[in-house]
Amino acid sequence: MKKKIPHRLYLSEDQLPKQWYNLRADMKELPDPMLNPANFQPATAEELYAVFCNELAHQELDNTTRYFDIPEEIQEFYKMYRPSPLIRAYHLEKALGTPAKIYYKYEGNNTSGSHKLNSAVAQAYYAKKQGLSGLTTETGAGQWGTALAEACSYFNLPLIVYMVKVSYEQKPFRKSVMQTFDAQIIPSPSNTTNVGRKILEQNPNTGGSLGCAISEAVEKAVSTPGYRYVLGSVLNQVLLHQSVIGLESKTALEMLDEYPDIVIGCAGGGSNLGGLIAPFMQDKLLGKASPRIIAVEPASCPSLTRGKYAYDFCDTGKVTPLAKMYTLGCGFIPSPNHAGGLRYHGMSPVLSKLYHDGYMEAVAVEQTKVFEAAVLFAKQETILPAPESAHAIRGAIDEALKCKETGEAKTILFGLTGTGYFDMTAYNSYLEQTMTDFIPSDEDLQKAFSQLPKIPGIQ
Amino acid sequence: MKKKIPHRLYLSEDQLPKQWYNLRADMKELPDPMLNPANFQPATAEELYAVFCNELAHQELDNTTRYFDIPEEIQEFYKMYRPSPLIRAYHLEKALGTPAKIYYKYEGNNTSGSHKLNSAVAQAYYAKKQGLSGLTTETGAGQWGTALAEACSYFNLPLIVYMVKVSYEQKPFRKSVMQTFDAQIIPSPSNTTNVGRKILEQNPNTGGSLGCAISEAVEKAVSTPGYRYVLGSVLNQVLLHQSVIGLESKTALEMLDEYPDIVIGCAGGGSNLGGLIAPFMQDKLLGKASPRIIAVEPASCPSLTRGKYAYDFCDTGKVTPLAKMYTLGCGFIPSPNHAGGLRYHGMSPVLSKLYHDGYMEAVAVEQTKVFEAAVLFAKQETILPAPESAHAIRGAIDEALKCKETGEAKTILFGLTGTGYFDMTAYNSYLEQTMTDFIPSDEDLQKAFSQLPKIPGIQ
Repeated sequence: MKKKIPHRLYLSEDQLPKQWYNLRADMKELPDPMLNPANFQPATAEELYAVFCNELAHQELDNTTRYFDIPEEIQEFYKMYRPSPLIRAYHLEKALGTPAKIYYKYEGNNTSGSHKLNSAVAQAYYAKKQGLSGLTTETGAGQWGTALAEACSYFNLPLIVYMVKVSYEQKPFRKSVMQTFDAQIIPSPSNTTNVGRKILEQNPNTGGSLGCAISEAVEKAVSTPGYRYVLGSVLNQVLLHQSVIGLESKTALEMLDEYPDIVIGCAGGGSNLGGLIAPFMQDKLLGKASPRIIAVEPASCPSLTRGKYAYDFCDTGKVTPLAKMYTLGCGFIPSPNHAGGLRYHGMSPVLSKLYHDGYMEAVAVEQTKVFEAAVLFAKQETILPAPESAHAIRGAIDEALKCKETGEAKTILFGLTGTGYFDMTAYNSYLEQTMTDFIPSDEDLQKAFSQLPKIPGIQ
Repeated sequence: MKKKIPHRLYLSEDQLPKQWYNLRADMKELPDPMLNPANFQPATAEELYAVFCNELAHQELDNTTRYFDIPEEIQEFYKMYRPSPLIRAYHLEKALGTPAKIYYKYEGNNTSGSHKLNSAVAQAYYAKKQGLSGLTTETGAGQWGTALAEACSYFNLPLIVYMVKVSYEQKPFRKSVMQTFDAQIIPSPSNTTNVGRKILEQNPNTGGSLGCAISEAVEKAVSTPGYRYVLGSVLNQVLLHQSVIGLESKTALEMLDEYPDIVIGCAGGGSNLGGLIAPFMQDKLLGKASPRIIAVEPASCPSLTRGKYAYDFCDTGKVTPLAKMYTLGCGFIPSPNHAGGLRYHGMSPVLSKLYHDGYMEAVAVEQTKVFEAAVLFAKQETILPAPESAHAIRGAIDEALKCKETGEAKTILFGLTGTGYFDMTAYNSYLEQTMTDFIPSDEDLQKAFSQLPKIPGIQ
């Protein structure tokens, strides 16, 4: 007999993951190693200690440990807001008239408003355990900064957040939330770092970029005693922590006797996508199942679909190690009319490698189509999605509409990473029809690619 | 053996209430009836039909039916965002160092950001079923307007929202959310109604009030063919719908072998408080248990603790029926420095009667103390509370601290009605220490009381 599938399924507290899953341990070929830009040699743990706290540096480089125990203290924190629900989108399905079964994993049910808290609490915990004096980070739309502020406040750890200046100005309430959690917020570029001062000299009116804010946060960390830098996406350690999303999703689907034909996630730096797909990608790597896995990215910042697979800096100021990834070039800044988030020039090296090796697909979507999906979803499912998350909604709707054409009752799982309460300016511009789309020209991209670093013997 | 109590308990979909509970059916003495202001006679269903849709008028007047079946379509909608979790505040308890066990029922997990959706979907459903052309309502802080916009959008029912002008101007993003759900938003007072024009003539620069917005919404409804008016609090029908909060809470506590010694809710018009306490008050009325029940209201709008128990209008413009309730007078407007919500001059007649008869306690708290509690709670429990909800947090913390003094391990349940994402201006003023407290003087209140309606033979 077919199980009755509830609208929302919550795992019990006992069913919460007690280990993170490290996708690298099951990859046939590993991503190329991070390189030290000074000598183009693979970065060592010791070299990373200057930037990251020790345990996180080890997690970053560990390609073999399949499962990492989640420390008790982090499990305790997770229990405050996890499990996140796995939701059957009955109302959206009905509105679309699709035979597809659509599920989504909803990560917006905490003050930070997104999945970012899953890694933030881990990174703050390890920093506190090491006895650090504080942390620095950057934030764009503000989800990561909010999550980290919340985690640092919980562990009584000082935090300095470099917030992309245009967001700092456009999202005063985001800033207020971080300040509620005692974080110090600095608009980037700023005159608190060498790299910031240099960028301001060259372009005094710049609204900043995520890449530039990263440079400032890294410089601040390495130049302040007892401080380290933390990052909310891209890194291997972040994907490791975010695997709780996928692990919970898989357990919940198993309880419903379901397995996804398609897994869909939005893709900026890859933190949610990598976490959501982790156990399904494991099945694929081990030949146990063959779900389609689709990354959805903005057409205005199309790193997977139009980027180069090459070594590049993770930041604009070129102070970070080099990572092999799909990149638009570390100088690439999306058009100012882009309101939809996911504006990072690169992509997680793990996801880049999997995409390069054919384990994953990618599509790029325009932002008016993304907000169209967001509004339809909000009206049907009582959740106002973040613009980032709405990329995955767009992808899921498009696949569900294909099912409508073919009559196939496919099972679709997508990640709903967060809520859009701080993105109403973008919603406004969509509702008032002043939102426009922008697709970078081939010439623009070639120009950005031409600045990729030259590495003797490699590229 | 003592059960292990998880941080979050979710009922299964099967355990969701299938009936609402009508507290009036178990009251020893009923609240005095609503009066028609034209003849001071009890309002009849037929008289209410002009304002409310028929089914809701019946619910309003039905003092005997103990349980109302929740229509299938409303149950379907509830399943999208319910059950709401019952959360054990382990981290808050630890931070307070209290032996008390603190539970809270969290209603903020939907786009409207609050419990208001529980009644909004019911009211929109009955209006649609009756074939109405549209609805009007008012909103202050915006939670009710958002909830109703969401519900009306789901049922494809046009909605006009009169939004208190000061909120309209201070909360542009609240407005945007309602517009996302296709609602028409009019700042109140406006020149779209007689009562609005009259108020504007007398006081062109007024920021409006909830009482005034109610007057406009009622006038608009009765003067527009096929429209009816709906209200998010105060009314008996609203308390009926909100009983899902208490019913779910009680079932969840029973699963944990727990029963509250104290039940605490914030009190504005009484929608959340009345819903949360319903089944516990039933136990008290039937002599089965004797929990303390505490309403927490703002010191700047203290209807229960300093108001008069008298017949009064529900609105400033004096177009509604008269209700017997604790009231500060329908002309009372809280000090403009009041940022904490719960600014209604009156209180649910059902709750007023229960308070008058000694079944419920009430305390008034100052807003700086409320925000202090809100920030402490946010840091410990990963939820940024709405200022309204934070009144209940304040009440719960105060009771937990008393337990710390006495060493008693009392079980406290409070209602966390919603999130504060649209209240960051208020949080800012608290963080920047520009927030002040205000307590109306006895003279102010006497002046407001002097305008209570004179009713021959009654008051």
